[in-house]
Amino acid sequence: MQTWQHGQVASASDTLAEELPVALEFNGISHAVMLATPLDLEDFALGFAISEGIVDSVDEVYDLQLEQRCDGLVVQLDIASACFARLKEMRRNLTGRTGCGLCGTESLAHAVRPLPPLTRPGLVHEAAIRQALTALRQHQTLQQVTGATHAAAWCGDDGCIRVVREDVGRHNALDKLIGAVLKSRPAVRDGFVVVTSRASMEMVQKTVTAGFGCLVAISAPTRLAVDLAEQAGLCLIGFAKPERWVAYSHAQRILPADN
Amino acid sequence: MQTWQHGQVASASDTLAEELPVALEFNGISHAVMLATPLDLEDFALGFAISEGIVDSVDEVYDLQLEQRCDGLVVQLDIASACFARLKEMRRNLTGRTGCGLCGTESLAHAVRPLPPLTRPGLVHEAAIRQALTALRQHQTLQQVTGATHAAAWCGDDGCIRVVREDVGRHNALDKLIGAVLKSRPAVRDGFVVVTSRASMEMVQKTVTAGFGCLVAISAPTRLAVDLAEQAGLCLIGFAKPERWVAYSHAQRILPADN
Repeated sequence: MQTWQHGQVASASDTLAEELPVALEFNGISHAVMLATPLDLEDFALGFAISEGIVDSVDEVYDLQLEQRCDGLVVQLDIASACFARLKEMRRNLTGRTGCGLCGTESLAHAVRPLPPLTRPGLVHEAAIRQALTALRQHQTLQQVTGATHAAAWCGDDGCIRVVREDVGRHNALDKLIGAVLKSRPAVRDGFVVVTSRASMEMVQKTVTAGFGCLVAISAPTRLAVDLAEQAGLCLIGFAKPERWVAYSHAQRILPADN
Repeated sequence: MQTWQHGQVASASDTLAEELPVALEFNGISHAVMLATPLDLEDFALGFAISEGIVDSVDEVYDLQLEQRCDGLVVQLDIASACFARLKEMRRNLTGRTGCGLCGTESLAHAVRPLPPLTRPGLVHEAAIRQALTALRQHQTLQQVTGATHAAAWCGDDGCIRVVREDVGRHNALDKLIGAVLKSRPAVRDGFVVVTSRASMEMVQKTVTAGFGCLVAISAPTRLAVDLAEQAGLCLIGFAKPERWVAYSHAQRILPADN
């Protein structure tokens, strides 16, 4: 490693973020491999199972084992037989139509899956958003060392950061957060989720599926993300800095400080 | 849309980046669907076919048609029968072992595909890197309007930016660049590629497969990216700003300004 500064080689010191292939197996069947930061992988697997609609609740995941193999890590999930039957059905339908692909969802119809809208999403105080955005950086411990990771955080109505997870991938960070939050079976999913990345359609999909009512993204949303957030009842905020942000959907649920 | 500034609702104006499901079909068989910015999709499809090793050169893509369907866009590629046979074989192997997945590569063995090392990669002048990094922003026309897109650029030995492509996804931006560059059949792939994102393992894989010798990423690389770059003979530079960057592999190919 060589650091260059103003055209000269300077001193070098740096910590690289780890990224490893992580395979998810459901009831013994390999489902997907993602490149992920090898931290909080149980949360990751649980969050993925929920946010991708493979299971509907943490209670349908009976067991979860992490195994090191020579070429990466495997998380083996034992899920309820009804969920597994549904997963197999979904996979069989796909196989029949398109065979098997190396990357991505394979047909247009499956790219945007139907999303039941949120029921009774709560209000969010703008002062809480400001507070969370100000405090987030100091909670990003991996980012401080590597400069390479995204974070996802669950913040309370008061703006306090309750749970943070980090990963080289923004979707992975959100899945880890979802797993970490839902495994504690919170009575309500109040407050809001902050992500240090952009808000794509998939981020909206995952947030809504996990039952959170508000997503705050440090960077930009896409149009598809905004459309989906509007339909699903998610309050979507983008380009978020403590002093300025843009609300793209369900802005009426944000309460000004004097309310 | 509502812009909040210092706790108050301010004026609102913004342009959202488009993101649509784009399906790639090879010889009539659906292979993958990606969410992409619907611009330069022919470049995208061609670049994807090359960077993912589906074809070995642009001459093996005989025809390329873009079709609008109700739920997204489809790019239909007609590729050489030998390449299609290889693709089918690859898909059959996967189907046999794991069925079909909704997301990602499905087994660890396929997550890191073997990468033939670069042959005779060239030298890169540090002054050229500085120049390209300084000039890139003004070439990011979509980013200036939306704030939501990544760019990938091919830069000459002199630091001039030759081709730029943009997309909401960083992998897509790189695929679009690869397609745009290789369709012009450049005699050499000299100079270097700049991406406005992080450098993941997949970005290194795509860059090497397309035959470029140097990748400059504005943000961080991951360890797997560095390992793969080292093995494949790619000069990988990360955290790149005009005045400072870090070379992670094959740094001996960077020439200081006084050489």
